[in-house]
Amino acid sequence: VTDERTARAGLSRLTEPAILRVADALGQVGAVRLYEDILAHRASDDLVADAGGRLTTLDPARELEQADRLGIRFVIPGDAEWPTQLDDLAHNGAVSELGGAPIGLWVRGPLRLDRLADSVAVVGSRSATTYGEDVARALGAGVARAGRCLVSGAAFGIDQAAHRGAVALDGPSVAVLACGVDRPYPVDHRSLIEHLAATGAVVSELPPGCAPLRMRFLARNRIIAALTAGTVVVEAATRSGALNTAAWADSLSRPLMGVPGPVTSAQSQGVHDWIRSGAATLVSRPEHVLELVGGAGQHLVEVPRGPEAPRDRLSRRHHQVLEAVPVRRVAGLASIAATAGVALVETQSALSYLARHDFVVREAGGWRLGERARGGIPGSGG
Amino acid sequence: VTDERTARAGLSRLTEPAILRVADALGQVGAVRLYEDILAHRASDDLVADAGGRLTTLDPARELEQADRLGIRFVIPGDAEWPTQLDDLAHNGAVSELGGAPIGLWVRGPLRLDRLADSVAVVGSRSATTYGEDVARALGAGVARAGRCLVSGAAFGIDQAAHRGAVALDGPSVAVLACGVDRPYPVDHRSLIEHLAATGAVVSELPPGCAPLRMRFLARNRIIAALTAGTVVVEAATRSGALNTAAWADSLSRPLMGVPGPVTSAQSQGVHDWIRSGAATLVSRPEHVLELVGGAGQHLVEVPRGPEAPRDRLSRRHHQVLEAVPVRRVAGLASIAATAGVALVETQSALSYLARHDFVVREAGGWRLGERARGGIPGSGG
Repeated sequence: VTDERTARAGLSRLTEPAILRVADALGQVGAVRLYEDILAHRASDDLVADAGGRLTTLDPARELEQADRLGIRFVIPGDAEWPTQLDDLAHNGAVSELGGAPIGLWVRGPLRLDRLADSVAVVGSRSATTYGEDVARALGAGVARAGRCLVSGAAFGIDQAAHRGAVALDGPSVAVLACGVDRPYPVDHRSLIEHLAATGAVVSELPPGCAPLRMRFLARNRIIAALTAGTVVVEAATRSGALNTAAWADSLSRPLMGVPGPVTSAQSQGVHDWIRSGAATLVSRPEHVLELVGGAGQHLVEVPRGPEAPRDRLSRRHHQVLEAVPVRRVAGLASIAATAGVALVETQSALSYLARHDFVVREAGGWRLGERARGGIPGSGG
Repeated sequence: VTDERTARAGLSRLTEPAILRVADALGQVGAVRLYEDILAHRASDDLVADAGGRLTTLDPARELEQADRLGIRFVIPGDAEWPTQLDDLAHNGAVSELGGAPIGLWVRGPLRLDRLADSVAVVGSRSATTYGEDVARALGAGVARAGRCLVSGAAFGIDQAAHRGAVALDGPSVAVLACGVDRPYPVDHRSLIEHLAATGAVVSELPPGCAPLRMRFLARNRIIAALTAGTVVVEAATRSGALNTAAWADSLSRPLMGVPGPVTSAQSQGVHDWIRSGAATLVSRPEHVLELVGGAGQHLVEVPRGPEAPRDRLSRRHHQVLEAVPVRRVAGLASIAATAGVALVETQSALSYLARHDFVVREAGGWRLGERARGGIPGSGG
């Protein structure tokens, strides 16, 4: 009888990552049973057939030992270090017909994966512009400055710039690879990847030694999206692979953010399309990113009502809209309407009324609470 | 007894534009009565006091004659040429404490103002970058190519570039000025403004001879927003006056659009803030603008249901989301959720389900109907 970790190590060698029918079978019978079924040719024909070519050289117990000697650990569900946010992948739709939670993660580096719940992914085009790389570096630095981990794919262009931005501030950074973690790819980034392995972590679904294949990049992208609290796409042409990561973040309902650029730049066109469609939110500074992935100030403070506050005299509808105007931030019309659950046009007219009576103040970018509304809330007048 | 046109000409001389209490009084008693009340000191004290300094030289009948000799006409509500979309200003909230429909418009040029219902405003910073001016010129050209009128303020930077883009294609263009239409401002744009007066129109609330004052620019901005079917802001720093026009478009619930730029450019920051807040939609090409201001393809074609369409077997909730996916366009998650009236997360999961069953197809920028959904609709399969 095989133990769970060895079975999963074996399965990670026998199967390609993100194959939905593997994930389904794993969910149905568990890792040990699935592994033994494949070995005994009792699993469904296609799983056995796909694994066939890999059975002869299989020795997961020895692989785990070898990995350990190389400083590589295999983290699986149930481990204290397992990043449980990855489990969201089990319940979400496929992108490019891939999907499912990973069988396990091979990890090199001191950073524990269970510390990535508030991490941020910054990804983008490999053929980035200087502008894009500059912005990615600044975002990486901003994420590090906020004490969060920067996750990316160590690729050319945007990815490496984001990693370097974090690393320059001694911030932790994680590279998720589409090949074995002992096999730096791209090779030009060997020293960057070694640095991440020494200070943060290098992670892969694929066992040591595996080569980077096209489909493995698509599978890898879902790990980046699922590991992090939000994904920022810095530059991506219309058909860029970075948009695959964006699709994953969207599919997981994680905050998806895009950095705009000149409309004349093909490298920004894919990002602009996503912002225009409403699927991605425009961000232009690290603070915008941190706000969206959930930082200080995101949760409205519950404030006690003052006696005889002038807002008590407002109509129910006006009250409803006023309650949706945030205490400290500026919010846009659409966002207030959505929060209040009131139609856009009615929200607009209510806000105009509230502005005339100093309950709210219009500013570039939207509305904020005015003096009068704050007056009724003891302790929040400043 | 004064006639309506003469009374309004007199009032346009006696009062500053966009003063809410003037608009209120006009709405209550009408132009003739208000004009005679002010002359007879029967109007409210502040209106009489404000008009005081202008009463001595007042002779609106003669002004109308003089204007006519200069090729300037005074268009008022009730005229066939009156652009009725301006009446929306009577029912909408104030911006910067200004508001109300104009008393009348002084016009130079062959273009009839009642042809502006589908016109497009392109505005932005006076201190624009080369990038911004290039984009404004391209948008102006795109608007002209679509056979629509380009409206702007003839200012330095974005405004003039947008006008010139339209003019280069012999497209009609209208400049709304914050001074008399006989008084080109800025003077460096004299030949541009004369060209617009010869081929399109130059428009102002202010009678001939009036100087451009700060508050008149704010009043002018509301005319640009209200005359047009949508406003595009090309570049605007955080406190740019162009955002005042944006606030008017927003307040009037007219489509408000913003062109992104490098996040490192201060001239794009105000635009980015509005896009980020959701109040403005990102546009990067003229087609995006035309789509939003209502052009071909905006209205979904009503299609008959086929018998035994496979969609009949979907759950009610899945059906609801599928119905919200447009027939020919790609729509974003947020837009589909809003159309369907289904929560974002549920919409996401429904779309994933529908995608797995080929009812919808995911693309960069959102979702479109898939083969299977189209199959059930006779005549829309192409």
